[in-house]
Amino acid sequence: MDLAEAYALVQPGLTGVEKAFEEIIDGQDGFPEMQKMLRQVLVGGKVVRPTLTLLAGSFYDYDLNALQPMAVSTELMHIATLVHDDAIDSADLRRGRATINSAWGLDLAILTGDFLFARAGEMAARTGVLHVVMLFTQTLAVIARGEVRQALASFRLDQTYEQYIERVAAKTAALFTLATDSGAILSRAPEEAVQILHRYGYNLGIAFQIVDDILDFVGAASEVGKPVGADLAQGTVTLPAQKLLQRYPDNNPLLAIARKENLAENIAKTVEMVRSSGIIDECYELADDFCRLACSELDQLPQKPAKEALIALADYVIKRRK
Amino acid sequence: MDLAEAYALVQPGLTGVEKAFEEIIDGQDGFPEMQKMLRQVLVGGKVVRPTLTLLAGSFYDYDLNALQPMAVSTELMHIATLVHDDAIDSADLRRGRATINSAWGLDLAILTGDFLFARAGEMAARTGVLHVVMLFTQTLAVIARGEVRQALASFRLDQTYEQYIERVAAKTAALFTLATDSGAILSRAPEEAVQILHRYGYNLGIAFQIVDDILDFVGAASEVGKPVGADLAQGTVTLPAQKLLQRYPDNNPLLAIARKENLAENIAKTVEMVRSSGIIDECYELADDFCRLACSELDQLPQKPAKEALIALADYVIKRRK
Repeated sequence: MDLAEAYALVQPGLTGVEKAFEEIIDGQDGFPEMQKMLRQVLVGGKVVRPTLTLLAGSFYDYDLNALQPMAVSTELMHIATLVHDDAIDSADLRRGRATINSAWGLDLAILTGDFLFARAGEMAARTGVLHVVMLFTQTLAVIARGEVRQALASFRLDQTYEQYIERVAAKTAALFTLATDSGAILSRAPEEAVQILHRYGYNLGIAFQIVDDILDFVGAASEVGKPVGADLAQGTVTLPAQKLLQRYPDNNPLLAIARKENLAENIAKTVEMVRSSGIIDECYELADDFCRLACSELDQLPQKPAKEALIALADYVIKRRK
Repeated sequence: MDLAEAYALVQPGLTGVEKAFEEIIDGQDGFPEMQKMLRQVLVGGKVVRPTLTLLAGSFYDYDLNALQPMAVSTELMHIATLVHDDAIDSADLRRGRATINSAWGLDLAILTGDFLFARAGEMAARTGVLHVVMLFTQTLAVIARGEVRQALASFRLDQTYEQYIERVAAKTAALFTLATDSGAILSRAPEEAVQILHRYGYNLGIAFQIVDDILDFVGAASEVGKPVGADLAQGTVTLPAQKLLQRYPDNNPLLAIARKENLAENIAKTVEMVRSSGIIDECYELADDFCRLACSELDQLPQKPAKEALIALADYVIKRRK
């Protein structure tokens, strides 16, 4: 099964997500500026997380009336965190479009993010399942806390691989597992299956973020939708940078970046060194390992098309070279 | 009944709120910087909102195991919005203490606010009542949306009294009604009583914010915990300023403020004019009207000490001259 087929499997649900987003925008009728901001961030996402929710919820006895709002909720939470991240990073572009902070200012980015968190929570509540609401709130806490850690560690080079994984787990894998856990729970999956889907979400999330961190070094701005080296500009030391530091502990432009010296020049140098070092391939291999780990237990789930779709999704994560 | 007696009535619940806050701080064991930030905002609040929740929940058959987390939730949501408000306003002080944004930076203020929203949602979910969770998320959306409106209207003088009340309703009364509604619902109050307590919360919230807006003109920085004229510095035109503008539509320092000319000087002039105009008394009278309206239906509730306490709370709102 390829990615298109995987998405096709949950197309009605994904269309439902789009519709729910339109309803949120329409709900701000009479407040055109708010509608404009919401449209800017709600239209045209990649919907990986809702797809995960819908697929993870396809193995057992699911009620689409509960699964559907949760698919909406995971994507809304994702978008809300992006809006706040961009505000924090003073990022100008996201998905090739102006960010709320760049077009409307920081204050409106903070508030629009808050509004989206609220709507995300509302959608989680619409599942009618308190356990899922609890997971939702705990995930948001983990993400925020992880971002606090990242902010406090910025421009610091003394970070271990374990700390990197921990950060990535909080930043990305937590929301992936919310997607898979909630899907599993809402379809009344047995506990063992919930755990298998949880580990799938976790490992896929780690792989996804590793690839994201790779793309910050190899992607062109036009492809990734944001400038190359953006992480380093924020002082975020990701896996490729960590590996470069291990390889060249003494003569390394990262040392100057940590001292915030000639940032633009040293970032360009670091990007160039990472690209020409073989580190990118190493990182892709690691992401590949996590993807294989993610899929390693899926054969224990019922034989449904969703299983092939989850494998196709993991495949895509690795191939996401642009 | 005086205010101290009103608080005494719900003291075990308020102690429970403090304890819950301590647990949230302790939960970040091994992350001292996070604990420091949380302590900065969680310790020493005025707990008006938890008091409201606990009192509103005292008339019927309440389960303290549900009411207690909701009391925590309302105060956490309040604090989270303050953290984001201060970040937006670049405020240095809150309750006489350094704000998160001033002591740790804007990024950490955004993230700490998000973390607190998450914990607030978790506490709402701990009530075990989805209806209350739904009210929680809807209230957060109303507050965020109201703040968006306020931000978009900043430095604009063409605002009506109705728009002011609408803004105040979103900014403050929404959380007051969440407190009273949730208390009422969690104590299985009959629908009519829920509505009476809702209107109490709404009208008290409006009165509370009017007094807050007055204090921005008459309070000394040491008493209010933030500088006088802070609203005007943000371009927020509150009731006293609106009234001044109506009284002196042509020769008024607000016209220069709207053009952002000599802000400090013109703010000082505006504050002085408001103080010497009798407008403050007018505003207090209006707040008084809302307080009386708030209490006007309480006699229909069961004869419990909580009723006298709600009246004492309304009394305090008006007397809060410092």
